[in-house]
Amino acid sequence: MDERNLSTLAQTVLERIFIELEASGRHVHVTETQAQQLFGHSLTPQRPLSQPGQYLAQERVTLHGPKGKLYHVAVLGPARKEAQVEISLTDGKLLGILPPIRQSGDVKGSPGIVLAGEKGTISIAEGVIAAQRHVHLTPEGAEKFGVRDGQIVKLQTFTERPLVFEDVLVRVRPDFADRAHLDFDEANACAMKPGDLGRIVP
Amino acid sequence: MDERNLSTLAQTVLERIFIELEASGRHVHVTETQAQQLFGHSLTPQRPLSQPGQYLAQERVTLHGPKGKLYHVAVLGPARKEAQVEISLTDGKLLGILPPIRQSGDVKGSPGIVLAGEKGTISIAEGVIAAQRHVHLTPEGAEKFGVRDGQIVKLQTFTERPLVFEDVLVRVRPDFADRAHLDFDEANACAMKPGDLGRIVP
Repeated sequence: MDERNLSTLAQTVLERIFIELEASGRHVHVTETQAQQLFGHSLTPQRPLSQPGQYLAQERVTLHGPKGKLYHVAVLGPARKEAQVEISLTDGKLLGILPPIRQSGDVKGSPGIVLAGEKGTISIAEGVIAAQRHVHLTPEGAEKFGVRDGQIVKLQTFTERPLVFEDVLVRVRPDFADRAHLDFDEANACAMKPGDLGRIVP
Repeated sequence: MDERNLSTLAQTVLERIFIELEASGRHVHVTETQAQQLFGHSLTPQRPLSQPGQYLAQERVTLHGPKGKLYHVAVLGPARKEAQVEISLTDGKLLGILPPIRQSGDVKGSPGIVLAGEKGTISIAEGVIAAQRHVHLTPEGAEKFGVRDGQIVKLQTFTERPLVFEDVLVRVRPDFADRAHLDFDEANACAMKPGDLGRIVP
């Protein structure tokens, strides 16, 4: 076997076993109406994210909590049907808000917060969560790793401070890209660097 | 067996299997000379810590990094032979300093920082680290858990976001109390609350 074939084989083996880790910073999702209230216009895409169709917007917001503020917080597009503010537990301590650990979209009964944009300020009654760590997979990825949508798996990290995350949610959709998503507390706990890999343990 | 005996048995079993988790916030150790420079006097004990002889001092410092500052940072006593600044990777990002992950006391070649107290400011050439997660054990505790000083073990957490930390250092000394020490990134990654327990996996 020549070197090129060996390298292709190695790549194939890597892809069968490992999944790329990605850290999600604190961010906000807003509705079209809220975008108008905060910025005076719709969201402006700045760059695409790893999940197809999702983008980082040019706009930024300030989060006002009872105990502190977080500035220049990312806004992700496209606009959603409901506002959602995803922060880490570290962020929560600074803001004075204890976010429940929830799957994205599951905001019922979660704390509210005040968001300030360039043009206006809005208050949401609920929507602040810490995103439950999760793995995005295409149906092909799910088949490859032998897991299904909604399954709870473990995720072993091959990072400077290795660990095994339990209670990792599998989310499967044709429009996903295969990635394991951690928040910054989790990424720092394992000392993750961009490009680091993990292994799904069913 | 009456209820009291059952409860005592349960307690004994708990103590044989589990170890209490404790989160260490960012903190500073200084020498006696540096305490004089920073505060104009020696450290004043405020309250004892879980490790016998160690205390939180009344004094606080501000850490000045190239990119940011951290205020009201705890100073632990008694004074040491060498300054040491223990921060999380999250703190490091805010300060603009990348701390190596090291065992306490192993500061050679680590980054320096500026510390400001009520009476003066000092600059240390090295000493900023992120403490490697570790378990403090008495010799009796080490025997109970079947581990030895310097051993690397895993630590399974029974917390809201359970996980298994790998690369956990065992430190054994007669003057220790049995506790597993995490930094705040690690404590938040597993959503640890005070009193939560872990299990040492040799």
